[in-house]
Amino acid sequence: MTQAAPAPATQAVPGTQAVPATAAPVDAQTYAEIVQFYSHHMQLLDNAEAEEWADGFTEDGVFAQNVKPEPTRGRDTIAASMRRGVDRLKNRNVVRRHWLSMVVADQVDPGTVRTRYYAVVFETPVGGKASVYLSTTGADTLVREDGRWRIKYREINHDGA
Amino acid sequence: MTQAAPAPATQAVPGTQAVPATAAPVDAQTYAEIVQFYSHHMQLLDNAEAEEWADGFTEDGVFAQNVKPEPTRGRDTIAASMRRGVDRLKNRNVVRRHWLSMVVADQVDPGTVRTRYYAVVFETPVGGKASVYLSTTGADTLVREDGRWRIKYREINHDGA
Amino acid sequence: MTQAAPAPATQAVPGTQAVPATAAPVDAQTYAEIVQFYSHHMQLLDNAEAEEWADGFTEDGVFAQNVKPEPTRGRDTIAASMRRGVDRLKNRNVVRRHWLSMVVADQVDPGTVRTRYYAVVFETPVGGKASVYLSTTGADTLVREDGRWRIKYREINHDGA
Repeated sequence: MTQAAPAPATQAVPGTQAVPATAAPVDAQTYAEIVQFYSHHMQLLDNAEAEEWADGFTEDGVFAQNVKPEPTRGRDTIAASMRRGVDRLKNRNVVRRHWLSMVVADQVDPGTVRTRYYAVVFETPVGGKASVYLSTTGADTLVREDGRWRIKYREINHDGA
Repeated sequence: MTQAAPAPATQAVPGTQAVPATAAPVDAQTYAEIVQFYSHHMQLLDNAEAEEWADGFTEDGVFAQNVKPEPTRGRDTIAASMRRGVDRLKNRNVVRRHWLSMVVADQVDPGTVRTRYYAVVFETPVGGKASVYLSTTGADTLVREDGRWRIKYREINHDGA
Repeated sequence: MTQAAPAPATQAVPGTQAVPATAAPVDAQTYAEIVQFYSHHMQLLDNAEAEEWADGFTEDGVFAQNVKPEPTRGRDTIAASMRRGVDRLKNRNVVRRHWLSMVVADQVDPGTVRTRYYAVVFETPVGGKASVYLSTTGADTLVREDGRWRIKYREINHDGA
């Protein structure tokens, strides 16, 4: 992490402006589904199940991050990229836990939901002490497909980057 | 934070005693509404939208904290006070994220809910590493007004203060 | 925490394999009940109400942790063990807050739910600064009893241990 050009200290949560004025909060059933989808999705990631994690994206899903020059496009590419990431982590002997919470979910149409949320990563070295590794905000477009939720577009913004 | 007179190491969650014996847990729909209200409310704060954040209080809303000598009374006063706070933060080039979770919500009457919760603040300096800034407990009285939830009374207790 | 034999850096979330293939995610009402049960349960613990906290286990409940040689068996034994723990903590003048989130909950039968989740502990010394004390994963078998949820079996795995 470099001490590069000063960024605005207060960063808007991505996607805040993206929800149409007609969108309404999702109902309790959809909210519970989405929170459980996110929880399972992050557990897969932290278990190094990169391919099962990537199955949470649509086939044409896009994963954008403010710390990357270009979004990653397509489930297979997303899976391959995350596989390299989790394999690198295995060699470092640390455990990471991705927490995703503070979810606001708006129903765009019956099969589409837009979310804005916070996520932090806790890191514990084997034999060491836990700490906060990273704080981020995120925004997703989720679509209902095969009776479950998948991510069509995800944008993650690392705080302080 | 001063090293003043020793406080009890284990502090009761505020408001625990405040809920009448007849109160019952809220239903799933209300719970989802409240969790989404809190999530949106904190996103507004961290986006430096102090006035929109203060609109989450009733006009006569009260915001009490154990680190302040007096509660702040009234939405306009709460907004002005938070505006000063977020403007000060802008000059410090740090990003803060308020997480509010662990919510227990009891229905007092159809338009009133009492909550007890935990909140932490993560802080990331621009170009730096995230860390925990603060851990707190909170208790709110929420009322339904104009088809949404608003805070009538909030009490925040900073841990270790 | 010792620098003993190297453990796998990426640890499976406990209980992931334990849910039968026929289990389905719980509905919104059950999900809200369980999240509120967990929130209240942890607030009791952090308030040093060890006996009330232990009442969240069935009479024959089991509490297993990867940092203990043997599971603790039976509500009374669990209560006595936690009473010793919270009393020790009182003498150390620190405040701990247990956050339990990222809950995936599967309905095994109408009165039984299996959960997998993350939990972290934040610690604040009196007059000092908050930090992350511990990161864990957990898995519970919950049963419905006397109109409420109780823990029949809990397994907590400390990260990095």
